[in-house]
Amino acid sequence: MLGLKLPTDPRWVNIVEKNIDEILTDHAYCEQKAASTAISLIVSYPEYTELTQEMIALSREEMAHFKMVHDRILERGQVLGRNRKDDYVIQLLKFFPKGGSRTTQLVHRLLYAALIEARSCERFRLLSEQLQDKELAEFYHKLMISEAGHYTMFLKFAREYGNLEEVNTKWQALLEYEAEIMKDLGKKETVHG
Amino acid sequence: MLGLKLPTDPRWVNIVEKNIDEILTDHAYCEQKAASTAISLIVSYPEYTELTQEMIALSREEMAHFKMVHDRILERGQVLGRNRKDDYVIQLLKFFPKGGSRTTQLVHRLLYAALIEARSCERFRLLSEQLQDKELAEFYHKLMISEAGHYTMFLKFAREYGNLEEVNTKWQALLEYEAEIMKDLGKKETVHG
Repeated sequence: MLGLKLPTDPRWVNIVEKNIDEILTDHAYCEQKAASTAISLIVSYPEYTELTQEMIALSREEMAHFKMVHDRILERGQVLGRNRKDDYVIQLLKFFPKGGSRTTQLVHRLLYAALIEARSCERFRLLSEQLQDKELAEFYHKLMISEAGHYTMFLKFAREYGNLEEVNTKWQALLEYEAEIMKDLGKKETVHG
Repeated sequence: MLGLKLPTDPRWVNIVEKNIDEILTDHAYCEQKAASTAISLIVSYPEYTELTQEMIALSREEMAHFKMVHDRILERGQVLGRNRKDDYVIQLLKFFPKGGSRTTQLVHRLLYAALIEARSCERFRLLSEQLQDKELAEFYHKLMISEAGHYTMFLKFAREYGNLEEVNTKWQALLEYEAEIMKDLGKKETVHG
């Protein structure tokens, strides 16, 4: 359903299982970055009214998720750690050429967001199905559903604002590119690592 | 109550009254910047748990305000325009020396946020009392109450995390400095201009 070309190495869940504190910290920042991306899309493209409305709702939802994750960190007697760089995201950004028209740039940002949501959704599904901690599994099940909705929304906007055929071609190329990146990932205690 | 040393030139409301579309656009971005500031405080100081919790709530509230302003812009048949630089904020930032300890930097960011909330509160009060459009006046009355709460919160955190006496001295100096800036302002159709 998500279109991803390579599933995450199933051993990734075992790594997560042994590093719940680390995954929660990384996850919190994924939610924060998603909120910041939504706000940044508003600032860059305010004239796209429907996008702006959805990005307002999304930024609020992502910060609500951030709170859910933050609360879990506190419940575990921990304090939120520092943000660390996300190699997956750095690699992903290399797919998109610099420059191009304003609309092209918007489409790229929407596809980028769609893909991160899709991969997060796949990862959260794995956690929801395989984590030993059933309560934490249930937590990830709920978030997985949200991420799937976001993925669909970003892809819809990309297809609406860009040329449909071009967007579909680019999306397929991006999925292929991401599968290549993914071959080397799934080995770290982070949401996308 | 807000501690401000110089009230806004009352003619500012007349300028706003003739430029409602411009003030709403500028106001929307004030809410967005407040949300972004809250998120940025979380990323910079995640170990301050109480601050993080409050900044999560604040970022969500500011984006809810952003939506309220955006909806008004749409109701007026307009589309959100581009963000423009805020001379008041640029001037205000010059008060704070670069460098200093991590805690000093945090205190500066909290005082900066407190002052912007205080001035916004004063400006919204003026609008709530003097706008001819009574429904818009009521809108600003509600927001004025929120801004007052935020001002108190930021000042409380500054006093809690910094040295109380030093923070109070710095706050007074900042208020004096801001009053100097304000002498040349109150002449533009923006929230702080």
